[in-house]
Amino acid sequence: MLNRGQLVLNNFLHPIKVLFEQKSVPLKPWNDDQIEFLLQILSNMDTDKDDKAARVGEREARIASNLHLKTSAGFCHGIGRSGFLTAPQPKAPGGSILYEIANYLARDFLKKFGLPNINKAIVLPICTGMSLALTLAALKPDWNNDDLIHKRTVIIPQIDHNSILKSIEMVGARAKIVKGKIFGDAVRIPIEDIKKNVDDTCFAIISLTSFFPPRENDDIKEISKLAKEHELVHVVINAYGVQSPEWMKIIRSGIDAGRIDAVIQSTDKNLLTPVGGAIIASPYKETIKKISQTYAGRASASPVVNCLISMLSLGIEGYQELEEIQKKNRNILEQKLSKVALKYNERILEVFNPVAVAVTLKNLKKEQLSALGGALYNLRVTGPRVHDPSDKAFGTCSANYNTPYIVMNAAIGATKEDITVAVERFDKAYHQIMKK
Amino acid sequence: MLNRGQLVLNNFLHPIKVLFEQKSVPLKPWNDDQIEFLLQILSNMDTDKDDKAARVGEREARIASNLHLKTSAGFCHGIGRSGFLTAPQPKAPGGSILYEIANYLARDFLKKFGLPNINKAIVLPICTGMSLALTLAALKPDWNNDDLIHKRTVIIPQIDHNSILKSIEMVGARAKIVKGKIFGDAVRIPIEDIKKNVDDTCFAIISLTSFFPPRENDDIKEISKLAKEHELVHVVINAYGVQSPEWMKIIRSGIDAGRIDAVIQSTDKNLLTPVGGAIIASPYKETIKKISQTYAGRASASPVVNCLISMLSLGIEGYQELEEIQKKNRNILEQKLSKVALKYNERILEVFNPVAVAVTLKNLKKEQLSALGGALYNLRVTGPRVHDPSDKAFGTCSANYNTPYIVMNAAIGATKEDITVAVERFDKAYHQIMKK
Amino acid sequence: MLNRGQLVLNNFLHPIKVLFEQKSVPLKPWNDDQIEFLLQILSNMDTDKDDKAARVGEREARIASNLHLKTSAGFCHGIGRSGFLTAPQPKAPGGSILYEIANYLARDFLKKFGLPNINKAIVLPICTGMSLALTLAALKPDWNNDDLIHKRTVIIPQIDHNSILKSIEMVGARAKIVKGKIFGDAVRIPIEDIKKNVDDTCFAIISLTSFFPPRENDDIKEISKLAKEHELVHVVINAYGVQSPEWMKIIRSGIDAGRIDAVIQSTDKNLLTPVGGAIIASPYKETIKKISQTYAGRASASPVVNCLISMLSLGIEGYQELEEIQKKNRNILEQKLSKVALKYNERILEVFNPVAVAVTLKNLKKEQLSALGGALYNLRVTGPRVHDPSDKAFGTCSANYNTPYIVMNAAIGATKEDITVAVERFDKAYHQIMKK
Amino acid sequence: MLNRGQLVLNNFLHPIKVLFEQKSVPLKPWNDDQIEFLLQILSNMDTDKDDKAARVGEREARIASNLHLKTSAGFCHGIGRSGFLTAPQPKAPGGSILYEIANYLARDFLKKFGLPNINKAIVLPICTGMSLALTLAALKPDWNNDDLIHKRTVIIPQIDHNSILKSIEMVGARAKIVKGKIFGDAVRIPIEDIKKNVDDTCFAIISLTSFFPPRENDDIKEISKLAKEHELVHVVINAYGVQSPEWMKIIRSGIDAGRIDAVIQSTDKNLLTPVGGAIIASPYKETIKKISQTYAGRASASPVVNCLISMLSLGIEGYQELEEIQKKNRNILEQKLSKVALKYNERILEVFNPVAVAVTLKNLKKEQLSALGGALYNLRVTGPRVHDPSDKAFGTCSANYNTPYIVMNAAIGATKEDITVAVERFDKAYHQIMKK
Repeated sequence: MLNRGQLVLNNFLHPIKVLFEQKSVPLKPWNDDQIEFLLQILSNMDTDKDDKAARVGEREARIASNLHLKTSAGFCHGIGRSGFLTAPQPKAPGGSILYEIANYLARDFLKKFGLPNINKAIVLPICTGMSLALTLAALKPDWNNDDLIHKRTVIIPQIDHNSILKSIEMVGARAKIVKGKIFGDAVRIPIEDIKKNVDDTCFAIISLTSFFPPRENDDIKEISKLAKEHELVHVVINAYGVQSPEWMKIIRSGIDAGRIDAVIQSTDKNLLTPVGGAIIASPYKETIKKISQTYAGRASASPVVNCLISMLSLGIEGYQELEEIQKKNRNILEQKLSKVALKYNERILEVFNPVAVAVTLKNLKKEQLSALGGALYNLRVTGPRVHDPSDKAFGTCSANYNTPYIVMNAAIGATKEDITVAVERFDKAYHQIMKK
Repeated sequence: MLNRGQLVLNNFLHPIKVLFEQKSVPLKPWNDDQIEFLLQILSNMDTDKDDKAARVGEREARIASNLHLKTSAGFCHGIGRSGFLTAPQPKAPGGSILYEIANYLARDFLKKFGLPNINKAIVLPICTGMSLALTLAALKPDWNNDDLIHKRTVIIPQIDHNSILKSIEMVGARAKIVKGKIFGDAVRIPIEDIKKNVDDTCFAIISLTSFFPPRENDDIKEISKLAKEHELVHVVINAYGVQSPEWMKIIRSGIDAGRIDAVIQSTDKNLLTPVGGAIIASPYKETIKKISQTYAGRASASPVVNCLISMLSLGIEGYQELEEIQKKNRNILEQKLSKVALKYNERILEVFNPVAVAVTLKNLKKEQLSALGGALYNLRVTGPRVHDPSDKAFGTCSANYNTPYIVMNAAIGATKEDITVAVERFDKAYHQIMKK
Repeated sequence: MLNRGQLVLNNFLHPIKVLFEQKSVPLKPWNDDQIEFLLQILSNMDTDKDDKAARVGEREARIASNLHLKTSAGFCHGIGRSGFLTAPQPKAPGGSILYEIANYLARDFLKKFGLPNINKAIVLPICTGMSLALTLAALKPDWNNDDLIHKRTVIIPQIDHNSILKSIEMVGARAKIVKGKIFGDAVRIPIEDIKKNVDDTCFAIISLTSFFPPRENDDIKEISKLAKEHELVHVVINAYGVQSPEWMKIIRSGIDAGRIDAVIQSTDKNLLTPVGGAIIASPYKETIKKISQTYAGRASASPVVNCLISMLSLGIEGYQELEEIQKKNRNILEQKLSKVALKYNERILEVFNPVAVAVTLKNLKKEQLSALGGALYNLRVTGPRVHDPSDKAFGTCSANYNTPYIVMNAAIGATKEDITVAVERFDKAYHQIMKK
Repeated sequence: MLNRGQLVLNNFLHPIKVLFEQKSVPLKPWNDDQIEFLLQILSNMDTDKDDKAARVGEREARIASNLHLKTSAGFCHGIGRSGFLTAPQPKAPGGSILYEIANYLARDFLKKFGLPNINKAIVLPICTGMSLALTLAALKPDWNNDDLIHKRTVIIPQIDHNSILKSIEMVGARAKIVKGKIFGDAVRIPIEDIKKNVDDTCFAIISLTSFFPPRENDDIKEISKLAKEHELVHVVINAYGVQSPEWMKIIRSGIDAGRIDAVIQSTDKNLLTPVGGAIIASPYKETIKKISQTYAGRASASPVVNCLISMLSLGIEGYQELEEIQKKNRNILEQKLSKVALKYNERILEVFNPVAVAVTLKNLKKEQLSALGGALYNLRVTGPRVHDPSDKAFGTCSANYNTPYIVMNAAIGATKEDITVAVERFDKAYHQIMKK
């Protein structure tokens, strides 16, 4: 009988053994108990758990309440050492191992889900935008050198997103925006227009995959070639693009074709963690090291723990399943929206996007458009984007886009019910507004 | 009997009512159940908990595992909205209230513990160094304007700390370091030397309170006057200075005497949270708003939750008690170290520091010094700093400091036993090394 | 936005309000957070949470570790008062309410799942067997009265189950077993045989529903009539019978037709709680009161909390769904076992049982039978019952049963995979044993 | 650095290793994380955690909600096997080990705190009263044998406690109460009176230690001799007596001098667990085995887990410290009550009791006595016992006790503040009532 107990226990512990041997995302999902067990073992290796230690540093991961052990999963020392995130922290052997595993798994995860040609990844306890700032700061020219101070421009194919612009502003660089143009329903930034903007002041270029329609993803392959040719730092904003094999393929081709220094993706939007983390991947190990040395201090371990929790609790198979559901839901969303659109003499915007679908709202007047947003909020539909270009151009990524529209996403983790109910309520809201 | 139940329950809930009415740090500590109850109520106001919602955003705080609810205390939406940290997030009414309360309490806490002359504070989910970067980024000149591009220098009275230098580097500014000079045992940076370095390229100056001996705190009052006179942004690094009424008084006088834009302090070192958060306080509301608009995205709620947990679980009285113990421990540390020093013909460095005590190690040779560090590590003394200037000048804040020394801290949250045992082990280690 | 927060929060709290108004099992399942919230509110009404109380009793729910709050869900005072389980405990208003709700819900649950003709139910923190002991102790004649001392016999249609026999032994009564007879494959106890055994020494009779084949359920209706006629206490052991509408119907008819004093069912086997609780239901309120006054002290709240957790987390709809799955699984089990039986020239025993299926093992020899049990254990099939009457008659409920057999259950909560895999492994094990 | 991690981890795990080697209560307290770790390891050995198992039993520890894992500490299979509590349960290897350890530790605990002459102990998931029932049921004569049926009397030196009387009633025995007599302030039952009551119908005798004044503990040594002489089962009710070395000494002498079959003590009152468990100890291994075979089924693991949690979280040193505080508090209680008594012309009852102190209330009238109880309840004093013999004799253990009194306890786990505040409020309440 004891053998049976041992056998069941080994069965429970086995995945942990495999994890340390293979340093890769498990095929099968772990259950919560197994994940907690791993975290518990690791966090109990940190010196703040050592009841025989005498602590005379100014910072020793002392805590005011045991509740802190929950929010930090026991990793009270955070991660990093003196402004070098991936450097092992002698006071936190367990936390250091945690971080190393998380980074290994993040790399493995991205390799398996579309980017086999990256070499290193790092999980950051800051969002996508701040990660872009960190990346630019790490890779910018040495502006302490007066000969390089003019080299401060970052080229951006128009992206109407505040966070990205703030990132550039934060590191003291200048954004040079290449305006979006309208192609049918879609907004794109032609590679020729981008080329025309490259000059001697440029040191970097940004491109992106996932965004709201009508803006489509950039032609990353061509931008990548351009970056190589002009020796520009090239950062891909892949905010919630990991969920889509199509977007990932675009990046993969970009890496092969030219120069991509870093690909940045959110942990919450791709890996279903609480908000607050990002993964930066690169074909170059040295680049990741530089970025890791740019964070000015130690950081919270929670977002790193969250990323690890998600990778273990999903496993490769769990994520594949989520991707399949996402794909199906995206189709359902388009079908259902098409029907509603037809009913009101609207139509689906023809824009490539594996996550979102947009529908014209051309039959609604200005005040009806804002009424629609309010109505959906009251009907508890969260996340739809009603956009009225006559009200605010920012958001369409083009100065000349005239058609008002609504965007809905069938993002990873959403349920079929989310999609179905949201479209029904949209129908209802549109109907009510028209009747008034 | 039901009345009794109601009475006991009200007694339990009462502090929560008071918190919302007064928006100030409670006098008495809350127990963990009360804190969890508050967090639970608030996090259940966020829309990701709404089982009647239909979610069609790309980001909806979906989570892969319930373990995420622990590490985020249920605040899966994080904090902030589109690069504006303190803006209410419609998807997260509870998280927005949480953040507002945390910020109110942080302000109240700092006001009550030494800085009555601040007007606003913000809890940031990034460390002190990154908070400095954010502050400088928010307050720097508009470098998109070519007329201001030369104005990029930050003056620093020599601080041999990587994170601070990395912060300046990160935002694309230049550090101009005013060298430290030796006064007896102490290292100080004379105000005259600082004044000499101010020129037209400067836009900011940094000063600091808490640091390792032999570096003493800066003359913040005079720097503050200078900043006012030359219209320099003045940021005080008060890393772990909140615990000391003396350091806080120095900042208070600085605010009254001239210009201080922001005071930055760590949450973990001052408030006993896990590593990863900071509080920025300012006499100017507008300054805090600007900083809050500089973070390029949404951020993890965990460090904010941790700060709130600490303030509630300590209360005003709890923190006062911790301060008193810290003061006593600092005295004990000095007394005990004095005795050991005497024994080995060493002596206490005469440097003002309300937390740390340094002892000369002049009778140890180069290799003995590094042996001492190793011996203390093996004896499980964490956090002592053995410094050998002949090995590395960086750390003393002066090129000419010759005496090797060891620093130990009696920081807030440390126990008398920590202090006593650490000194005993130091004695033992010194003895062994001398005997070899 | 605050309204939205309030709305989401109300949505979260609404089921709790409904629970207190209706005191019935919710239609829809609650989520774990809602259940924990209810338990937290209630447990915080108990006086051990009152930090203004001065406690000078010998028993005040003081605890050595906060871990106790988990295992007791905060109800450290347990349930009951001085040997009266359902009496409100002044020190534990919250615990008293908890117990009242649990009992209301248990009654409602049984009424909705087959016993509309009961009037009262009580959740006991002891198992089915001990609950039978308690029931018999409560309803037995007054043996302090010498005129009644001969009235000590309990009639039992043969049930080869130790716990039941121990219950009778425990209360100082005598079991008079009416032997089982074979009818085709089934073992039954004819009502005529039972009648013959009733004499003046009898005060009670026991009947049962759920048991292992070949023993079928008793003819409860007839026993009930007999009990009424002879003024016998009649207790129905319905161990895991709640899951089956057919068994419940048999009891329902019994209540209507004659006398049933108490129906006893396990919480773990019917309601998927951890082992250790039972529900006793009765058409007579007074009977439940008597039983509740027989438990000699206060009791652990945990099994009561568990019963409540299960009822809330399943809800009416959740349990209905479980029942449907159970029914399907029972069919699958029979189909799959039939095929395997055919292969080895064995056959399904023709015995009425809505949960279990038995297959003959007539082609296996004595040592092969015991090898089969071992093989299944090693193949990690838990819960099958290989029975060899030549080895031990006890278990078949008849002295003359000759066919060896194996029993498998498709019980509530089991998955289709459990069933499928178990039958596959049985096939494999049988095959291997035959080959040797 | 990894070595350091290993070292800290080993330091954390070391006590678990020692526990399994020595099977004794640890000298030093464990922290909660260590206890949870042990419980987690053990509960993950149970087969309900085996994701490769196929479950076809009717009872497989399936659970409806993960909350059940908390309340059962993961031991969903409970304890025991077919009415034999200490028999290993093949489905629950971990739970079986848990129970074995708990029983070993309970024995060790009692041996170290006063009863070195016991040989075996068992932790029961039922209260003291039910444990007495179980013990009497296990040790009673075979009443199925008509020659023994007259042997049904249990002698009790008068104990006015419902639970004990109910226990005897439950097992079908008869209580023969030997009346208490008054000696000064105390109520005692003279051994001569007891002897006179022994006759041929008696099979057992009960004695007790801890009770409310004015009833003193029994002369257990003499009763023990009597039991030996007359071959009576002798059970000692030591409800909350473990905390007092004096009471434990009395039992110890009893075991040495004659016959004591079982000593029963509450886990909550002695070991600060939630209500619901008891420990039965015996000098005879066989007796414990018999009792363990009398529980008619499997039982909840929670009270067993609680007992283990308390023993580990206190350790030998922790309990010694609690005992010292208890002793001091008992003195403080007496001193403070003396002063108040003097003020109102009342006096301390001269009754031996190491936990409780009683004060006369002779100057209060009938209605004032009941007002006093109400006033103390409203002043949030829990646990005092105001007794008015003219109202109800039951409770004084003597028909002739005339003085009204109040009892307060300085029980283990109570704080000095409890005592001080309770006496102050008593003073206040007495004062108010006199004034009216």
